[in-house]
Amino acid sequence: MTTNERPFDLLNKSIGKQVMIRLKNGTDIRGKIVSFDVHMNIVLDTTEELEEGGSVRSRLGTILLRGGNILFVSPA
Amino acid sequence: MTTNERPFDLLNKSIGKQVMIRLKNGTDIRGKIVSFDVHMNIVLDTTEELEEGGSVRSRLGTILLRGGNILFVSPA
Amino acid sequence: MTTNERPFDLLNKSIGKQVMIRLKNGTDIRGKIVSFDVHMNIVLDTTEELEEGGSVRSRLGTILLRGGNILFVSPA
Amino acid sequence: MTTNERPFDLLNKSIGKQVMIRLKNGTDIRGKIVSFDVHMNIVLDTTEELEEGGSVRSRLGTILLRGGNILFVSPA
Amino acid sequence: MTTNERPFDLLNKSIGKQVMIRLKNGTDIRGKIVSFDVHMNIVLDTTEELEEGGSVRSRLGTILLRGGNILFVSPA
Amino acid sequence: MTTNERPFDLLNKSIGKQVMIRLKNGTDIRGKIVSFDVHMNIVLDTTEELEEGGSVRSRLGTILLRGGNILFVSPA
Amino acid sequence: MTTNERPFDLLNKSIGKQVMIRLKNGTDIRGKIVSFDVHMNIVLDTTEELEEGGSVRSRLGTILLRGGNILFVSPA
Repeated sequence: MTTNERPFDLLNKSIGKQVMIRLKNGTDIRGKIVSFDVHMNIVLDTTEELEEGGSVRSRLGTILLRGGNILFVSPA
Repeated sequence: MTTNERPFDLLNKSIGKQVMIRLKNGTDIRGKIVSFDVHMNIVLDTTEELEEGGSVRSRLGTILLRGGNILFVSPA
Repeated sequence: MTTNERPFDLLNKSIGKQVMIRLKNGTDIRGKIVSFDVHMNIVLDTTEELEEGGSVRSRLGTILLRGGNILFVSPA
Repeated sequence: MTTNERPFDLLNKSIGKQVMIRLKNGTDIRGKIVSFDVHMNIVLDTTEELEEGGSVRSRLGTILLRGGNILFVSPA
Repeated sequence: MTTNERPFDLLNKSIGKQVMIRLKNGTDIRGKIVSFDVHMNIVLDTTEELEEGGSVRSRLGTILLRGGNILFVSPA
Repeated sequence: MTTNERPFDLLNKSIGKQVMIRLKNGTDIRGKIVSFDVHMNIVLDTTEELEEGGSVRSRLGTILLRGGNILFVSPA
Repeated sequence: MTTNERPFDLLNKSIGKQVMIRLKNGTDIRGKIVSFDVHMNIVLDTTEELEEGGSVRSRLGTILLRGGNILFVSPA
């Protein structure tokens, strides 16, 4: 079985939409994807750092996240 | 003894099917492979994070997993 | 939905302006971006290392920060 | 003294045969090599995760192991 | 706003001058830059390893520091 | 002063001979070099894992060791 | 201010001479440089592993040290 889809299609379809990103250090952040590149560097808008339970720990606003720190990205 | 098979054939045959993925941090996740690329970045559907015993800890839905975090992938 | 923006545009728009940078080791630093390159190496001016609460722990002046140490960059 | 042998010859000669693989995280696994690539990504059949003493802790079946996690591979 | 400056300009302007370098392992060292390359490998003269408070712990003389160990470089 | 020798010459001269290899994780192993490649991947014969004091902890037989795990190689 | 010197010149001038090398794991070793390559892989002669205070802990003889483990190299 083959597919023409590629993993980065998920990022492309998520531009302008909210995603949850789990970082390698265990932190969860949430924000709206503005842009990304082939290294999975991502600019997020209205970014929030989340507590373990999902409540907001701090508001980070706009950030440029280095892709190498990402465990996974999930459409919120 | 030679073979024409390549490791990524296993991912290709698993598209649309459920796999279990053990991460380097020890976490097990389970989901259906939607797509993957040469870096082993994988999009999974109906993803679940598992407890040590195999029961579901949390439902993650669709995720884009960075390949560098993977220890191994196993057809479920 | 597509966009012509790229993650590094955020750095380019921030030249001469103050940003907050969270490092992989958990430290937060603040300073004005002088220049950057494709590896996200960044020269910052009037750099300050911050305490957990956001107050200034030490003044570092001008620094050349290696990009590989960065978790994220945020316009202050 | 020179030789025409190359390290990956050992993997090639082991296709269809059982090997023991020690991972960087200290885990030992055992299985039959189905295929491998230049990154030392390996597909194993009838894979078993071993206890410290060598007894079987769990059966993993077929897995695609990322080469970067390998400490060494040994014909069983 | 654009600039023609590049991060490595800071190193170039610092040749023959004293800098403070914070390493990833938390150590601070101080010395005069003799030369550097694109990997940020740096030769330092009259190098000193510093205590947390800034006093000298040990004199290292001339060293070739591997760039990958650097957190940041700051003109002293 | 210049030399025409290269570090890998030491490995080449050691083919068929016993070496001691210290791994990054602190383990010492001993064995006879069968082959190696540019990544310092090494096939060893009659490999032994050593205790801190130098006595044999376990016999590993033939192994393919990934070069990235090596701290240093020393002719025994 | 510019210079024609390059960091690796220090290694080249040290061939046949004794150097002290601090490893990333905190260990200090001392030996005479036989050869090196662009990855900073270094062959050392009459190598000694040093105690914290500088006394000799063990004699390692000739070793091929992988460059990636090096923090800095200093002419002894």
